[in-house]
Amino acid sequence: MTIRLYDLTLPGDRRMSPFCWRIKFALAHKGLDFDAVPVGFTDIPKLHDGEFKTVPILETGDIIMNESWAIAEYLDRTYTDRPAIFSSAAERATVRFFDAWYGLEIMNRLFMIYVRDIHDAAREEDKAYFRASREKRLGGQTLESFTADRTAKLPEVRHALRPLRATLANQPFVGGETPNYADFIALGGFIWVRAVATLPLFEEDDPIYAYVERGLDLFDGLARRNPGNALAA
Amino acid sequence: MTIRLYDLTLPGDRRMSPFCWRIKFALAHKGLDFDAVPVGFTDIPKLHDGEFKTVPILETGDIIMNESWAIAEYLDRTYTDRPAIFSSAAERATVRFFDAWYGLEIMNRLFMIYVRDIHDAAREEDKAYFRASREKRLGGQTLESFTADRTAKLPEVRHALRPLRATLANQPFVGGETPNYADFIALGGFIWVRAVATLPLFEEDDPIYAYVERGLDLFDGLARRNPGNALAA
Repeated sequence: MTIRLYDLTLPGDRRMSPFCWRIKFALAHKGLDFDAVPVGFTDIPKLHDGEFKTVPILETGDIIMNESWAIAEYLDRTYTDRPAIFSSAAERATVRFFDAWYGLEIMNRLFMIYVRDIHDAAREEDKAYFRASREKRLGGQTLESFTADRTAKLPEVRHALRPLRATLANQPFVGGETPNYADFIALGGFIWVRAVATLPLFEEDDPIYAYVERGLDLFDGLARRNPGNALAA
Repeated sequence: MTIRLYDLTLPGDRRMSPFCWRIKFALAHKGLDFDAVPVGFTDIPKLHDGEFKTVPILETGDIIMNESWAIAEYLDRTYTDRPAIFSSAAERATVRFFDAWYGLEIMNRLFMIYVRDIHDAAREEDKAYFRASREKRLGGQTLESFTADRTAKLPEVRHALRPLRATLANQPFVGGETPNYADFIALGGFIWVRAVATLPLFEEDDPIYAYVERGLDLFDGLARRNPGNALAA
């Protein structure tokens, strides 16, 4: 059965959605072939009569669905002869905590630092939509004024990453010797930054930078092939 | 084989060590009987010729060991016919992340709010040791001056708990429908606070307070039988 994934892109075929990356890693982990179809921000409402507001959107056979967490569970439920994304209900539940932590403590801060970079890297036809929707989320501030002091926000996100850094002192991945879905969540966020960043996120000797490098090598360099900028300086 | 656990106590038989609670929950989860032997802070160096500086210390047959994480792994390795503490290597590795988060973001903040309460609740013969060792850790400040503005620190720890709160909006335990070792870590910290707190940690409608109540009911009220103060106001 062909699997098609609608995958957010920027000019230069930079695939940037952190949520699409989770699913591309999950599909690769299960050894499933897929076709990642590039779409821009303003293409999403044109798909399936606007049923979905966000990517990833997965199509396979009669199934059309979105929401990365639901897709990951669907893949495990459906392809039971493939390696499991979640080895147990307890692992899946604990990864849910990781997802909450990464969203609240890390993704929110990355958004505040890189939101203008995303805008500047977007397709011309997507810029007005992106600016309007994000400036609304920022309480009406312009992207430019909101990110004017963004360099000063780097220490805070690096500090917030301490629990991940401490974990990686003892094991190469959050999942242990091999990555699990928590890693796909974390790496997805860093690959999102890498696709657009004009300000390096990490100091060069940060163990999390080495971790992202390991992540870029996973599945024969699946994410390394994606165009990106320097993540460390 | 008899299992003996040296278990830190305060007057009134208040068992307070968060790390001992992890192991008492883990032993109960595996359905293993154990004898929790009360010791005060200054008793620990008198055990086993001072080999261990911290509890829990587990004795069973020829085995004498400490460090809660090592004990949990030992229990799974040894009692393979009992319910597993960790269902898989990936779950165990992901719980390690939870442990790092809880230690860095939550336990450190709880310590700063409740360190004087622990001192005041300690056995008379333990107070001088406790004060000297903790004031050293606080850079020489007295416990009294360090905690003088502690009420102002409550919003910060409640804020830091957002990822746990968000997780509990979707599932009763970090482990999912039933608790796992991540819950034993989190609950251990809250039971530590409960044993000594003269300032309630939670607002009454905080879902984390309800979670702690569920935790107190686990294993026929194992932790609820431990004397404690109000955790919510």
